[in-house]
Amino acid sequence: MDYSNIRYIVKLNSKTHLVKTAQRDPLSLLWLDFEQLDYFLQAKSIPIVGIGYTVYPGSEYEPQMLREAARLVFEAHQRGLIAIIWAYPRGRAVSNETDPHLIAGAAGLAACLGADFVKVNPPKVKEGDPHGALKEAVAAAGRTRLICAGGKEIGVKDFLAQLYGQIHIGGTFGNATGRNIHQKPLGEAVAFCNAISAITFDGVSVEEAFAIYKES
Amino acid sequence: MDYSNIRYIVKLNSKTHLVKTAQRDPLSLLWLDFEQLDYFLQAKSIPIVGIGYTVYPGSEYEPQMLREAARLVFEAHQRGLIAIIWAYPRGRAVSNETDPHLIAGAAGLAACLGADFVKVNPPKVKEGDPHGALKEAVAAAGRTRLICAGGKEIGVKDFLAQLYGQIHIGGTFGNATGRNIHQKPLGEAVAFCNAISAITFDGVSVEEAFAIYKES
Amino acid sequence: MDYSNIRYIVKLNSKTHLVKTAQRDPLSLLWLDFEQLDYFLQAKSIPIVGIGYTVYPGSEYEPQMLREAARLVFEAHQRGLIAIIWAYPRGRAVSNETDPHLIAGAAGLAACLGADFVKVNPPKVKEGDPHGALKEAVAAAGRTRLICAGGKEIGVKDFLAQLYGQIHIGGTFGNATGRNIHQKPLGEAVAFCNAISAITFDGVSVEEAFAIYKES
Amino acid sequence: MDYSNIRYIVKLNSKTHLVKTAQRDPLSLLWLDFEQLDYFLQAKSIPIVGIGYTVYPGSEYEPQMLREAARLVFEAHQRGLIAIIWAYPRGRAVSNETDPHLIAGAAGLAACLGADFVKVNPPKVKEGDPHGALKEAVAAAGRTRLICAGGKEIGVKDFLAQLYGQIHIGGTFGNATGRNIHQKPLGEAVAFCNAISAITFDGVSVEEAFAIYKES
Amino acid sequence: MDYSNIRYIVKLNSKTHLVKTAQRDPLSLLWLDFEQLDYFLQAKSIPIVGIGYTVYPGSEYEPQMLREAARLVFEAHQRGLIAIIWAYPRGRAVSNETDPHLIAGAAGLAACLGADFVKVNPPKVKEGDPHGALKEAVAAAGRTRLICAGGKEIGVKDFLAQLYGQIHIGGTFGNATGRNIHQKPLGEAVAFCNAISAITFDGVSVEEAFAIYKES
Repeated sequence: MDYSNIRYIVKLNSKTHLVKTAQRDPLSLLWLDFEQLDYFLQAKSIPIVGIGYTVYPGSEYEPQMLREAARLVFEAHQRGLIAIIWAYPRGRAVSNETDPHLIAGAAGLAACLGADFVKVNPPKVKEGDPHGALKEAVAAAGRTRLICAGGKEIGVKDFLAQLYGQIHIGGTFGNATGRNIHQKPLGEAVAFCNAISAITFDGVSVEEAFAIYKES
Repeated sequence: MDYSNIRYIVKLNSKTHLVKTAQRDPLSLLWLDFEQLDYFLQAKSIPIVGIGYTVYPGSEYEPQMLREAARLVFEAHQRGLIAIIWAYPRGRAVSNETDPHLIAGAAGLAACLGADFVKVNPPKVKEGDPHGALKEAVAAAGRTRLICAGGKEIGVKDFLAQLYGQIHIGGTFGNATGRNIHQKPLGEAVAFCNAISAITFDGVSVEEAFAIYKES
Repeated sequence: MDYSNIRYIVKLNSKTHLVKTAQRDPLSLLWLDFEQLDYFLQAKSIPIVGIGYTVYPGSEYEPQMLREAARLVFEAHQRGLIAIIWAYPRGRAVSNETDPHLIAGAAGLAACLGADFVKVNPPKVKEGDPHGALKEAVAAAGRTRLICAGGKEIGVKDFLAQLYGQIHIGGTFGNATGRNIHQKPLGEAVAFCNAISAITFDGVSVEEAFAIYKES
Repeated sequence: MDYSNIRYIVKLNSKTHLVKTAQRDPLSLLWLDFEQLDYFLQAKSIPIVGIGYTVYPGSEYEPQMLREAARLVFEAHQRGLIAIIWAYPRGRAVSNETDPHLIAGAAGLAACLGADFVKVNPPKVKEGDPHGALKEAVAAAGRTRLICAGGKEIGVKDFLAQLYGQIHIGGTFGNATGRNIHQKPLGEAVAFCNAISAITFDGVSVEEAFAIYKES
Repeated sequence: MDYSNIRYIVKLNSKTHLVKTAQRDPLSLLWLDFEQLDYFLQAKSIPIVGIGYTVYPGSEYEPQMLREAARLVFEAHQRGLIAIIWAYPRGRAVSNETDPHLIAGAAGLAACLGADFVKVNPPKVKEGDPHGALKEAVAAAGRTRLICAGGKEIGVKDFLAQLYGQIHIGGTFGNATGRNIHQKPLGEAVAFCNAISAITFDGVSVEEAFAIYKES
């Protein structure tokens, strides 16, 4: 392993995006089970601190995914790992995937599953503060800490302002950012991570974070 | 755990309400199995006295749920736990979910499964006493004790009168109340619980119970 | 247990009648498996002498039920229990559930499964002796003994005459009667059982059996 | 067991013919698994020399049957048993079940599964020698020996001539005959078996075999 | 075994081509599992160096196949075997199976599964160099080495030129050739293998490889 001092979250299910909901409701099944994950835990060549699993509430396959998710959370906690649920309402039954009440329901579902963190898409509102709409989801999540998906690449300052609002207005505990980082050149991505980290862990302002990005 | 002296019933399956029956018949699968529940039983950090499981008689997935339910009841009894079946007829095959005969059939099904308690929705009647319509279900349940779901929030006195009628006319053994309690402020909810308890366990009248609610 | 000196047959699958064949072909899955049944066998609080399982030949779920049935028969015999197969052709593929040839096929299927007894619905004929139509099924069952389902409640004498014909003309080995017994008052039901027993085990005539019923 | 000196092939899956392909593609699932078959192997009350399993290539359930078949062949060989695959292309995808190329494909599939023998329906040809059309299937089967299904009852001499052609022209290793034997009276059936045996194992001519049938 | 000094790759799933995508999305299930494969590994009568498994990204059955594939890769690596994924986008959701971006996605999927090699169909382009279109897939595969399927039989020199382009322009690590070899007479097939080997392992030119083919 190249980066053996990085702490890893192992995502345990995944799917392609080829099959659209119009064709079949989404289903993502467990790849490796915990007996197999234990091999990597015991090998200790990389520090694994948690596991992740996606559920699609509202999919016709919701029962299968809730079962797998509940068991994974249990098994993760047995091993001292944190458990993160990606909760994305999706399927023919779901007319508006970013409805604030629905996002709140997904967050509450992750709490029922016993997750330590739940990752949701940020809700969209027709008017008013979108970050305020997150409060309902954060409340529904209870002791499960809510983080927002990063979404597609946007401008750096816009991203940092959005993150600041999610945390300080919405009450989230951070942001799970992918494309906004890995679609940048390496040096710029590292600088961007430093800025994200400063907002999330050090409580700096958007301007301060942007300066960190510029200086890095 | 915050309330380690409260006795818990562990509900072992659940689902969201997003997928409507018109799209797909209801299915709720077991989350944790008994090998995993045993961990919590042995940890003894909270007193677990029973388990719960929902079946949807009339769903196309009835066979899978009856199988899981029968095995759960067996495993619960092996461990000295009580087993409670939520029995809600539902699916395209079910035209009237609150038909008294159908509710009675669901109660009898729970008896066949060996449940200690069965929770049903109170039947609805076009005319006559709705509580009297419960007698058929109570008889069908045999030695399985029947309790009614509490339903959506209604007025306190109406609720208490309904509960009284269910017990003293219908012959039920209590009521499983959720929203009518947890949608009230904490102090009021505690007072309401005291009133419910007085009717259920002490046999007081509706007026007496309402006074308890007022005084608490 | 209230009747610990009665010998029991444990029926290991069952379903409600809510889902009609027009909606979905019938499926009845195993409730408890043999590892769980063994608990009751070893407890010896009631004498269990056999197990029962229903198959629906012609259902789209026939493969799943035949697999479960074959394994149950094997496991029953390993434990010295008799195995009884309820064989009811049913499903969209079955246009006439009481066709004599089809009933015979169902009886032969139970023989292939290794059952000790097969319970079938009595075949119906447009003309001629309905009991004679049973001979084909009895022959197809080979060493598996065939018994007829009792059906809905009919007059006592009619029932006894029908039973006599099934045994002495059709060649069956008895009758599995439910509603005709348990829909009668207790005393009358006991008298009726005595009459059934006299025909089945003592070879008495219909008139003699009816007299036993009257005198009991 | 009545015929304890006869060597048995245990057929491990089966289905009725009630559900037609137009309604649902064919599926025949394993009845007993090898752990259960081992009981009979160890009991040694009858000599079991092999197992059989039917696959329906072209059925929508082909993946499930190929998986079961592959594992059965493996388990059979672990126990020193021969493994025979019935390979009948069938399902909505199969427009001509007796097409010579398709039969050859089914034979090759059985070879891939590692079977010792494959039983196929004899191919039908519009013109030319039907036995010659078997050569392609025999070649495709490689080291797996090919035998033909006997089909519905036909005249004795016609049957023997057909068998002779299948073996000596087509290159098959015999014939799995059912109805042509068991729909005859016992004595005649025994005589017929003697004739079949003489062609298959002793290489006699059709006339000689027919004489054996007549004389037996 | 006839060729006990040849190193084998064991392909662990397979299906026929009878069921077309228009009828049902493709599914190919595991035949033998690793507990059974271990028998052959331990027998050591043939040297087994790796396993293969086909996934059909975009099939409605993708979740089942990804699960099996991920576990196989894990189990292969536990035993020191290489794991090869055949990744063929296919199903109603896939309008163009040889789209370069889609092939790249399939290659990336195999990398996510942890495969050592991924076999893909060579992408097709409307204009420009088809081998150049492979670069995206090779990049997406990361450390998983990409090899191209050989496809249907074409002229020898055309095949060798294509292979050369795939390796030296596209950046692939070889070619998995079937029909182009086994549809030739034995001597010619051996000569052809020598030519393929010279391009793949020794880096010779197309002309030199063709000369090797001619001289062999």
